[in-house]
Amino acid sequence: MDKQFAHVVNFWLREGLSTAERQQFEAGVRSLGTIGTIARFHIGTPASTDREVIDRSYDYCLLCLFKNQEDHDAYQVDPVHDRFRETCSPFWEKVVIYDSVAC
Amino acid sequence: MDKQFAHVVNFWLREGLSTAERQQFEAGVRSLGTIGTIARFHIGTPASTDREVIDRSYDYCLLCLFKNQEDHDAYQVDPVHDRFRETCSPFWEKVVIYDSVAC
Repeated sequence: MDKQFAHVVNFWLREGLSTAERQQFEAGVRSLGTIGTIARFHIGTPASTDREVIDRSYDYCLLCLFKNQEDHDAYQVDPVHDRFRETCSPFWEKVVIYDSVAC
Repeated sequence: MDKQFAHVVNFWLREGLSTAERQQFEAGVRSLGTIGTIARFHIGTPASTDREVIDRSYDYCLLCLFKNQEDHDAYQVDPVHDRFRETCSPFWEKVVIYDSVAC
């Protein structure tokens, strides 16, 4: 049985990026949304909600839902994903991932 | 224009919960999925993926996508959400929320 797989990635970008570099990061992260096995895609910046339990310290939150883990695994090795890592990893300082499987 | 709103909540449960308490938490968190303004719902536990950048320390990851922030705000004050907080908050030790708006 398929169990939905959620892949959440929070990015903290390097200090002092130029506007062009930030745009290059945004274009790169958006390109991930073209990978065919993604069921639902989201790329966002911290919302205006602001309570003690809300972490607003990251710069971008990427979120991909997949039908199952196999679809996620195919995404990880897609050439578009490789290109994103190659071209955009110099722009971030820290990344934290939460992968979870529907229970 | 509607901007998709993502609400990600990681829960760390208290140590030593009984099976019944954990089941009560799971039932409560699942009940949130019945709130009408949610566009896409996910409740999961850490996947088997395990790399340095992956945080697997939480117990449950709740993820709700909304059409826009208004739909999220309505979810926060829904009676089902109030009931979840009232009945289930004793079960968790820590919660961290990432709210982001599509960019």
